[in-house]
Amino acid sequence: MSYDVEKSSVFSFVLETGISKDHVSSKRYLSNLRGMVANEAALEEMIKKEDALIYEFYEMGVPEHPGDLAFGTSICYPGKIGDEYYMTKGHFHSILDTAEVYLCTSGRGLILMENPEGDCSYEVLTPGKMVYVPKRYAHRSINIGKTPFVQFYAFRADAGHDYGTIETKGFRKLVVERDGDFALIDNPKWGK
Amino acid sequence: MSYDVEKSSVFSFVLETGISKDHVSSKRYLSNLRGMVANEAALEEMIKKEDALIYEFYEMGVPEHPGDLAFGTSICYPGKIGDEYYMTKGHFHSILDTAEVYLCTSGRGLILMENPEGDCSYEVLTPGKMVYVPKRYAHRSINIGKTPFVQFYAFRADAGHDYGTIETKGFRKLVVERDGDFALIDNPKWGK
Repeated sequence: MSYDVEKSSVFSFVLETGISKDHVSSKRYLSNLRGMVANEAALEEMIKKEDALIYEFYEMGVPEHPGDLAFGTSICYPGKIGDEYYMTKGHFHSILDTAEVYLCTSGRGLILMENPEGDCSYEVLTPGKMVYVPKRYAHRSINIGKTPFVQFYAFRADAGHDYGTIETKGFRKLVVERDGDFALIDNPKWGK
Repeated sequence: MSYDVEKSSVFSFVLETGISKDHVSSKRYLSNLRGMVANEAALEEMIKKEDALIYEFYEMGVPEHPGDLAFGTSICYPGKIGDEYYMTKGHFHSILDTAEVYLCTSGRGLILMENPEGDCSYEVLTPGKMVYVPKRYAHRSINIGKTPFVQFYAFRADAGHDYGTIETKGFRKLVVERDGDFALIDNPKWGK
């Protein structure tokens, strides 16, 4: 979808669910995470039963101009693959030197970040919390709660997405359940 | 206030009120609107009783780098000066060719926009509605409801603010109450 960014526009979504009646979301299912999770056998078992929706997001289709902003909402659903929480694929920006802002409007989630030099960090978000993802940091949204993790996001419209680096190497850290809460552990498959 | 944008950070505010416990807001009172309202006599009468808070906003102090984003929340309180609704001063960006995104999280408000060529537009916001303010458009937030009008905003960190043009010329349109709802009328003082 796209629109005329030279005119003002309003877009609606429900703060609690992240769902927009006016737009069609992009959807990612369990099968889209093949090759990206720690426990591939658990993933295949789950897909056999149902290829469930893991996350969806709305992109407003802003042209890639450095004076424009890409924005929308993302919704990551609750669940786990083995002990690894449902998550988005995550990405770098193609223009690496561009930041992104997220605002959580519902649920409880975590933003996992890392830069090419291997510095890793994370922030926990609940409604009303905004996270600043610095320039040069890949970022992934992870639902560590029991309800949909809903976020509004904005970044420079020409920043672009580099999904390939993460699809190939993964993140250095995994976010898993330990004793009923989340924990970060090293990703044994990182870079392989 | 400022912080290290090379590291991730979380900022908290209450979605319903826009208030952050962690930061100090910038505050604008009735007296800050002198010279900017239609009914200056009504304004002076009000200031005599109490120089009330009209709006406040949180800026995170992001350095002015084109790869960073300025973001925060703004809160415009309900009320009128004569029949003109409480509003922010409004501004152009110093780098005119940069857009801005607003997301309403509480209240009912209006974003008034105009470009240097005189094209005017507006959008009405309620919770969950996002407005895209196009490049080159000055913008002002106006509370047309009965509760605080709360918004999250984001724009390119180097865009800057040009308040002077609006302080000098005003907006071409005023937003006033007519028969219990808002109406846009021509600003008789525009450009004077």
